[in-house]
Amino acid sequence: MNDDDMQFSRRSFLWSAGGAMVAAPLAAAQVPHIDLPPLPGEPLRWAVVGLGRLAVFQILPAFAASRASRLTGLVSGSPDKARHLAQLYGVDARHIYDYDSYDSLAEDPEIDLVYVALPNSMHAEYTIRALRAGKHVLCEKPMANSAPECEEMIAAARETGRKLMIAYRLRYEPFNVELIRIARDPAEMGPTRIIEASAGFSIGDPAQWRLRKAMAGGGSLMDIGIYALNASRYLTGEEPTHVTAMMDSTSGDPRFAEVEENITFQLRYPSGILANCASSYGVGMNRFRVSKPEGWAELEPALSYRGLRMRVGRGEVVEQRPQRVVDHFAAEMDHLSRCVLDGTEPLTPGEEGLRDMRVIAAIYEAARSGETVALS
Amino acid sequence: MNDDDMQFSRRSFLWSAGGAMVAAPLAAAQVPHIDLPPLPGEPLRWAVVGLGRLAVFQILPAFAASRASRLTGLVSGSPDKARHLAQLYGVDARHIYDYDSYDSLAEDPEIDLVYVALPNSMHAEYTIRALRAGKHVLCEKPMANSAPECEEMIAAARETGRKLMIAYRLRYEPFNVELIRIARDPAEMGPTRIIEASAGFSIGDPAQWRLRKAMAGGGSLMDIGIYALNASRYLTGEEPTHVTAMMDSTSGDPRFAEVEENITFQLRYPSGILANCASSYGVGMNRFRVSKPEGWAELEPALSYRGLRMRVGRGEVVEQRPQRVVDHFAAEMDHLSRCVLDGTEPLTPGEEGLRDMRVIAAIYEAARSGETVALS
Repeated sequence: MNDDDMQFSRRSFLWSAGGAMVAAPLAAAQVPHIDLPPLPGEPLRWAVVGLGRLAVFQILPAFAASRASRLTGLVSGSPDKARHLAQLYGVDARHIYDYDSYDSLAEDPEIDLVYVALPNSMHAEYTIRALRAGKHVLCEKPMANSAPECEEMIAAARETGRKLMIAYRLRYEPFNVELIRIARDPAEMGPTRIIEASAGFSIGDPAQWRLRKAMAGGGSLMDIGIYALNASRYLTGEEPTHVTAMMDSTSGDPRFAEVEENITFQLRYPSGILANCASSYGVGMNRFRVSKPEGWAELEPALSYRGLRMRVGRGEVVEQRPQRVVDHFAAEMDHLSRCVLDGTEPLTPGEEGLRDMRVIAAIYEAARSGETVALS
Repeated sequence: MNDDDMQFSRRSFLWSAGGAMVAAPLAAAQVPHIDLPPLPGEPLRWAVVGLGRLAVFQILPAFAASRASRLTGLVSGSPDKARHLAQLYGVDARHIYDYDSYDSLAEDPEIDLVYVALPNSMHAEYTIRALRAGKHVLCEKPMANSAPECEEMIAAARETGRKLMIAYRLRYEPFNVELIRIARDPAEMGPTRIIEASAGFSIGDPAQWRLRKAMAGGGSLMDIGIYALNASRYLTGEEPTHVTAMMDSTSGDPRFAEVEENITFQLRYPSGILANCASSYGVGMNRFRVSKPEGWAELEPALSYRGLRMRVGRGEVVEQRPQRVVDHFAAEMDHLSRCVLDGTEPLTPGEEGLRDMRVIAAIYEAARSGETVALS
């Protein structure tokens, strides 16, 4: 680690002056001519596990925008798809694995980290196997289908001395980072009192794994509503104490035979902040807002892969507040690579995924029982 | 009633082609050159009861924009203020009343209707006394401080054969009317699935009656949150079956010694629509949104006296949808004047105020108990 690298400590990486993430790689086509500090050394080497839509359309292309992360391996149950993508991204055929050969990652010194982008029900197993193979792991959200699975994953990271991070990409991009700064700073328009966070989209193919309870663990809340829940937690910087919820699915819609379509939930935070959240597989929603005595700040879209917008309102004056544009996936991968290089803990470790999972269980319980559920 | 007047039946008045309210008076300075049908006869004659801020800054000036309503009387406990306003608006001193002489309205043939703009705790008494004096009544929201009071008011209207309308002004202005049309029409982007409605402002003077439990009946929910509740009811066209709620007030804030600051509530509607609502005396919120499978429609501001804006989004395309601008108070007063002339029932009769009051009681109960409250 050289002197330059000191600039990349976790704190400065995420919280540089002005709240923007200065060290994150910027896709040249998006924001040219930004001077970035020199690389601290060789980028770390990643394998991506699970070559579904997310991997193909978001994660693999993101390596082009990465500074500290390089794609060197692929894991897939589809040999043709893996071969094709390996050619496209210059991955050596020696580093293509399937689910049977997965554990032999342990003997591959050219892979440092693994990005688990499998269906939710496979997160725990493939995270734990990768940790036991000596790799650090970035695991997609939701962390798993239940809190006990999350606890096993955390224990495996502890036992193996490897890092485990959950892919809460919004924590690593400047619009959400700036909204966090505003939300938590009472000097900015007073203390936050009400948060509104809504996340949803109209889901397509009824046959996809996201709509199978056994693979997804639940419906819209597990996949997209978790963004609203997580946002209410990172905007407050607190843990919720109570939750109420209501759930509904369009009857007869084949997409919602096993999992919920819509779920609205309210969270009470210790400082008195109330969060009103909504989650949907039926309608599009994409907005986080914090309301304060002297004004409000909002992201809409708040959670899209690109095109986020921030507005801040005081009385009748509403201003746009543009932030730097980064590739969310490159930013989160580089964060974990830096943590490995620096020996620091990631901002969103396994414990963060576990906390969401416990609140999600409480939300489902509240929706079923009609009673406020207290969180310990 | 002449032939022209047929155009002013309740239905055509509110629901003309395109969803805009064609017959409502338009302040000339706002929208010039709109051709309006001729008046059906002499405007009806109104007395305004209670000369607080709402009357002075909104109701009295609105008569200038009215077509079917004329100011002929004032009722106030402050003789000086009443005299001053009478001069300003050309009200004959013979038609100035105080709360002792209020019942002698019965002997004043130059007053047809009364607008009750008193503190909430006085609505029932002054509405009933006006009805018994033979006057039709427009009563401000919330209708009263409790459902039994609302029932007495409705009974008095029935007994006296006079009309009773609650001043839900948003039902009479084109932005909300158009949002209702979109929300209820499944041909517009599919059926409504989720409604978000938030209403709040940072309240000032801690000594005002709105912050006294005995006079206001409650806090932000009674005064401003009722707009969010009422919107969720008129956007669905349904009655809620279940409600959950959470409440919080900044501790030590003298404004919230007796009544609640913030209350968030969720409503379940029979068709499966979930409504996420928020109400605040601490922060500004002013937005109604309906979310549908193929898009969304939103008003923000949704409930200001002027300056409302509508946006409709489909995917990444968001369009502004301007509507005609009307004076909300002139529109609601003229609606009731027309109902009196036509012998029709107002769109927001006493029963509408009673329904909100029952839901409000359920919201408070849910917030206190932490349990879902079922509405019968």
